[in-house]
Formats: sequence, C-alpha cells, structure tokens
Amino acid sequence: MTLPVDADRLRADIEENAAFGRVETEDPEAHARTNRTGTTANRDARDRLVERLRDAGLDVAVDAVGNVLGTWTPASADPNAAPVVSGSHLDSVPEGGIFDGPLGVYAALEAVRAMRDAGFEPDRPVGVVSFTEEEGGTFGNGLLGSTVATGETALDETLSLTNDDGATLDAALDRIGYRGGDAVDAATPTDASGDPTTLDPASWDAFYELHVEQDTNLEAAGAAVGVVTTITGITHCEVTVGGEANHAGATPMDERTDALAAASEFVLDVEAAANEVVETASPSAVGTVGSLSVEPNATNVVPGRVEAGVDVRDIERESMETVVAAARDSLAQLERERGVETEFERPFDVAPTPMNDRLRDAAHEAADAAGRDALDLHSGAAHDAMRISRVTDSSLLFAPSRDGVSHNPREWTDWDDCAAATEVLGGAMAGIAGGKR
Amino acid sequence: MTLPVDADRLRADIEENAAFGRVETEDPEAHARTNRTGTTANRDARDRLVERLRDAGLDVAVDAVGNVLGTWTPASADPNAAPVVSGSHLDSVPEGGIFDGPLGVYAALEAVRAMRDAGFEPDRPVGVVSFTEEEGGTFGNGLLGSTVATGETALDETLSLTNDDGATLDAALDRIGYRGGDAVDAATPTDASGDPTTLDPASWDAFYELHVEQDTNLEAAGAAVGVVTTITGITHCEVTVGGEANHAGATPMDERTDALAAASEFVLDVEAAANEVVETASPSAVGTVGSLSVEPNATNVVPGRVEAGVDVRDIERESMETVVAAARDSLAQLERERGVETEFERPFDVAPTPMNDRLRDAAHEAADAAGRDALDLHSGAAHDAMRISRVTDSSLLFAPSRDGVSHNPREWTDWDDCAAATEVLGGAMAGIAGGKR
Repeated sequence: MTLPVDADRLRADIEENAAFGRVETEDPEAHARTNRTGTTANRDARDRLVERLRDAGLDVAVDAVGNVLGTWTPASADPNAAPVVSGSHLDSVPEGGIFDGPLGVYAALEAVRAMRDAGFEPDRPVGVVSFTEEEGGTFGNGLLGSTVATGETALDETLSLTNDDGATLDAALDRIGYRGGDAVDAATPTDASGDPTTLDPASWDAFYELHVEQDTNLEAAGAAVGVVTTITGITHCEVTVGGEANHAGATPMDERTDALAAASEFVLDVEAAANEVVETASPSAVGTVGSLSVEPNATNVVPGRVEAGVDVRDIERESMETVVAAARDSLAQLERERGVETEFERPFDVAPTPMNDRLRDAAHEAADAAGRDALDLHSGAAHDAMRISRVTDSSLLFAPSRDGVSHNPREWTDWDDCAAATEVLGGAMAGIAGGKR
Repeated sequence: MTLPVDADRLRADIEENAAFGRVETEDPEAHARTNRTGTTANRDARDRLVERLRDAGLDVAVDAVGNVLGTWTPASADPNAAPVVSGSHLDSVPEGGIFDGPLGVYAALEAVRAMRDAGFEPDRPVGVVSFTEEEGGTFGNGLLGSTVATGETALDETLSLTNDDGATLDAALDRIGYRGGDAVDAATPTDASGDPTTLDPASWDAFYELHVEQDTNLEAAGAAVGVVTTITGITHCEVTVGGEANHAGATPMDERTDALAAASEFVLDVEAAANEVVETASPSAVGTVGSLSVEPNATNVVPGRVEAGVDVRDIERESMETVVAAARDSLAQLERERGVETEFERPFDVAPTPMNDRLRDAAHEAADAAGRDALDLHSGAAHDAMRISRVTDSSLLFAPSRDGVSHNPREWTDWDDCAAATEVLGGAMAGIAGGKR
C-alpha cells in the first residue's frame, strides 16, 4: 500500500521542533540543538508535539516518566485491538543535530496523517510515541523511557535518578508538567492503585522506529530506506594495567614495569582479535579501545598505571565473546610476560537484538509498493526499538545520513529522503494494522 | 687526605633547612618540604644559609638571579687564585624530600668547616654555592641559576620569566631580598657598568656537586659514594598521531583510521628500539613514552588523535640518535601502513656530558684515603654540574638513596651516609685546592 506523504508538513514539524534548544553556530551548514530532559526547551518540544498530536485527532497520554503516546482510534478500528505504534525521541545530545529522534516521532505522526488523508480505515488503533531521555547523559545512560516501560528497570528507581544539578527525574518532569498525572488527556496509564505508571509496550501489536542511519550504507547504495536485521550487541569493558612509575632517566630498561607499553600491547591485541573475527566469522564485528588514560602522564616518568575502555559489538553474541575472551587472554599474558597487574570489569552488556521478520517483511512490501529501494543492514548503535523488541514485535528503519555524520550540528538528511522513508514507514504500519481505503 | 666531618653538625644543618616549607603528612617515614623560588620558605632557607656561611667565616655574595656564593679565603690562599667551589641548590619540587639539593649545599659548607677544623691551609680560595631554581616548575624548566651563570641564557631574559601568578623572577627575588645588589656582603658581582650580574663559574678552577643518587646502584653495591662518569644526554620528542574519530559501533574494522592503535605500535617500537640499543651498543640507553593523551577519549568512539611525549637518554650521543631515528621510522611506517598523519618535534635536547677526569681522580683518591668504597656510575638525571661543566672542570658525586626514591617525601639518605659522602667530597676539594696542614 502506498500512502502519499506531505513532505512540507513533515519538514515544518521537524524545523519547528529544531527551534527548541537551538544553538547558534558560525557554520552555515550546521543546525545545532541541545534538548535535555527537564529543560524549558524540552518542555516546549513536548508541548508542541502534544498540540500536533491533538490537531491530528489523536488522544494523548503522558506516562509516569514523561513518555508521550498519541493514539488514533478511528471508527474502523476495534478500540480493544492491540495498536500498531511508531516513534522515537525528542531529546538530543549537547549540540546534536535536528533529525536524530525528531524524524522518528514526526514521521510516525505524518504516517497517521497520511493514512487519514488517504481515507485509509485501519482495523486497529495506530499510535505515535515519544520516549523520554533516549540519549542519556542527563538522567542515566540512555534509552530511559523505553527501558522502564518494558519493565527492565523499576519505576521508582528511574524517577530517583539525578542530573548534574542533583535534581531527580521525578522533580524535573514535575517542573515541566510531564510527570504523568492529569496534565493532558484522561488516557494517562495508572496501576491497580490508580497511581500513574508507564506505558505498556507489551500491549502493542507492533512497534516501528524510523531513525537516521548515522552511517553511510544507504548513501553509498543510493537506497531510500534501511531495514535493520539486527541491532548489534554491545559490551563495554573497563581495564586497568598497573606497573611501576619510575624516573625515565634513572630506571634501566630491564628494571621497568611500564604500564603504557603493556597497555599498548593490549590495544593491538583487541584490534587483532576483532580483525580476525571479521575475517573468519562475522564481518560486522568491531572491537575498539576508545579511551586510555595514563598516570602520572609525564614525559620523563615511566608510566605506572593505565586505564582503558573497550567497546565490543556484533550481531552475533559468539563473535562478541570471542573478542572479549581475547582481551582477557591478552591481560593474562601481559601479567605473565611483563609483570603488570591487571583488572577487568564488564559494566555494560547487551545481547544482539534481531528485529521482527513480520515487520521487516511489511517494510519491504511497503518499499516495493512505493517504488523505493530498501536495504537490509544492521545497526551498530542502540535505539529504543532494541528495548521494545523485548516485549513486542519491533522493527527499526533507517533514513540516509549525509556522510554518516551524527551527534553533530552537521548531521543532515535531505527533506526528500525524510519524506521517502516516512512513506515506507506509513505503508508498513498500514500493512501491519490491516484495513482498507 | 682525610678531613674528619662533624656528622651531627651536618645533620643539624639539613634538618633545620628542612623546616622551611615543611609539609606535614600522615606517613611517619615521610619528610616533605615544598620550597619554591621567591616564597617565604625560600627566603628563610637562604637567610639561614647566609648566616651559616658567615658563621664559618665565609664572605657571602648574592648575584643578580639570587645564586648565593660563600668564599673562604684563609691567609694560606692566594686571593687571586681561581677557587675550588662546591654546592647544589636549596629549592625543591612540591612535596619533595629534604636531601635533594640541601645535602650538596651543606656538605660543601661542612667540607670547608672540616678543612678549617683540621688546620688545613689551602693554596686557593674555597667556595660554597647555592644555585637558584634547580628543580624548575616555578620559573622556567630547571637549572636556572647555573644556566644563566654559564651564559647559556641571557640575564634579562631569565629575570623576565614569570611564575603561575604572573610575577617575574626579578620581582620575586626582589621581594625576598635576593636580587643581588647590596643585600649582603660587598662581594656581589657587577658588570662593567656596575650593575649586578651573575656569578662567573668560568673563573673557578673546579666545581664539585654532591647529590643524592635517586637510584639504587650505590645501595646495591654497598658503596659510600658514586663518582659520575657522564651525565646522560636527554632528548624530549613530542609526537602527534592523527586518525579519524568515528562511531565505535557504526564503523567497520576495515574503514577505520584508529589513532590509538597506531600510537600503540609507536610506543612498542620506541621500547623495542631502546631495548635493542641496550643489547647491542649501550646498556645505559633508555627510551620512554611517558605521556599519552587520546581524543576524544570515549569508550564508544574510535580515537581520532593521540599526543605522546618521548624521553630518550644515554651517555652516548650515537645511542640516543639510534632510538630517535627508530621513533621517526616508526611514524613513517605508520603513515604508510595505517594512513595516519603524524607530527614529530624535538623541543628539548642536551648532549651527554662527561665529567672531568682530574676531579674524578681526586674523588677516588679521597675515597681511598678515607677507606670508603667509591663506584663509577652515570647520572640519568640532569644537575647543575651539567651546566657548570661547560665552562670549567666539574664533577658530580652521589650519596646513596634508600630504595632509589626521590622527588617524594620518602626520599631518604642515612645520616652516616651523608657524612661519609661529605668526607669524600671534602678530601677531593682539598686535593684539588692544594695546601698543607
């Protein structure tokens, strides 16, 4: 099914949203915004979304962590049927771009408006969602709204998270009027006691998220939309290498325990392990030592201690474990051969997340119907769809990113590309919702 | 010749000096002091030295950069003969130990007192010197007083150096009364116009510096004194490796230009080059990558840029150049093989400095006469004797350092070891001065 999209309406929504937290820069090609949870800019962006959802005839609910859900339940739809929902997030990294998040929210709304404009009569309700604090960095580490809504973290624990000013999420949301309750329509979810609680994505039939790719695969292939097969798993390891700090002039080479020389072997071992997995098992595997800090870090002192941060990702759990095991083997070997002491922790680990085949097929069908090229690919970055997939069928779609740039004021997706990807999203949602026009 | 040393008098001098800038710590074995140029503690330490020099019958001169020289010219000495001078410095690193510098100053004074007490009648004047700002870090990079006195830097340039508060050395010395002039005895050196100028070490017959070893060679050999053969040359190189910062999840292994992986190869190449020189050419060579900074230094970002600081030292210039050449070759290879861009600078370079044979022989003779074991060794650290050797015969002697610790409140040399090394110093100075008792 093809549902014509109003490209100008979508553009206006994204451009108006970009004004909330806009950061002026001297670069004429830059479009920067800083939209952190609980700020005035964040409130204004939410207020405007609520207004636009109501303008389109959706009932708006705000849950206990500020997730916003608009639901369209036309006469054709069984109000008790599980809805098809789509969306993303409105928050940004500091001086981030204008598409990362908002494209997915307003594309979902445009898809609903396109259904309505085309006279499409869905069998089930259709929802548009905006999750709180996807980027992290203000309250917690990211994917906050989707993580608590899927039950992976407790509501009270999440509301107790504090920002750099020491304010709780609870207080920050209350201040801007997005701490659930009766701030908007009566549809705010409550628990058995009548207290505000979170949205329940497990009750949704399907979830689609459209996001900018943040890589160059679509641009290189000239494809309009990416259909993600799997969101890679991510492990972060924290490694410490302890040697002995000493005078660089007075300490002979054979009396040193140089923490940086040992850590350098570790960096190369991690790189080699990832390269070997790429060649022999899984081309998508990556292993990175992204951070490294040296103590005392003076030119004339043999380094005494190094801390390093390792990032390992792949669509195959086994490949990830191979790289992590190689990293641990490297440390054990450095202890034996260089006499350093090492520590290894793995504070963050998420398994690879395959996307749902039914929803992927619907996306490909919609792309075919619209005459758009769709490319199967994986996502190296985490998105709310990763969390939602734990409780219901989920799919992640990508729009092209110019030069793959993101988390940067130079992030860009052409307006035609935004509209084309939204057209595929709407077609896929309609296909899953079922119905006629 | 043996000149008995009063160990208690020497100890009292060093302990009293340790009170100026004392830092209280919780470690019962620690003796910390912070004595920076121009501070009240620095003034008090100088005042007390001047008082002790006068107590011992020396004429005191303060030069234009605060170098203090006491000269003993007994009736036996030709007042026009070039003097034999010994000394070191009174300033310290922040929270440094109590021996690094003050031992050399007060041992020189004790040597003069020992000559006088023993009825030794030297043929030439004997001097005790304390150089300004040896450690560096307050005004300039170290060896300040000896560098300007030997004409390697200009006086006005040196006086214009500023500390972290923006005060010039000129003003700082003036504030504490050590900007030459007529603050003390009439012996302050002046130039042809009558303006205060610096001491002229070129007019000295010989210079001895006794210093703590800052390494474990004497302790390991059970030797009382070290006779330095050569002060190692030192080169510092600043290296930049530029790659491309990128998303650690979305950038495949074969599309990366990882600055940290490249820099890790560099670190290991420098270490390997130094080890090879040690095995094949010069056992004293050392090469160290002591500092390394990564940008943006986030676990989930492929490193885009690394800056590293390299320290290369040896007693042979050729060995140093071999290691530096290997470092440059490594960078060239990384440019070819990894596509990084590299920069290489060499902001600091001092050639190896051999010590004077005549003075070394005199030190060995004095050790033999006193029944003390003397060990020939090199110095991996720079000292004022390195600068003075450019203009007159110079010798650097070492006293044992417990566990080789220095620049640390746990720096320690037993009082008996201080006295034994001072006895050798006095005998050597007397031998060079000539005379009878």
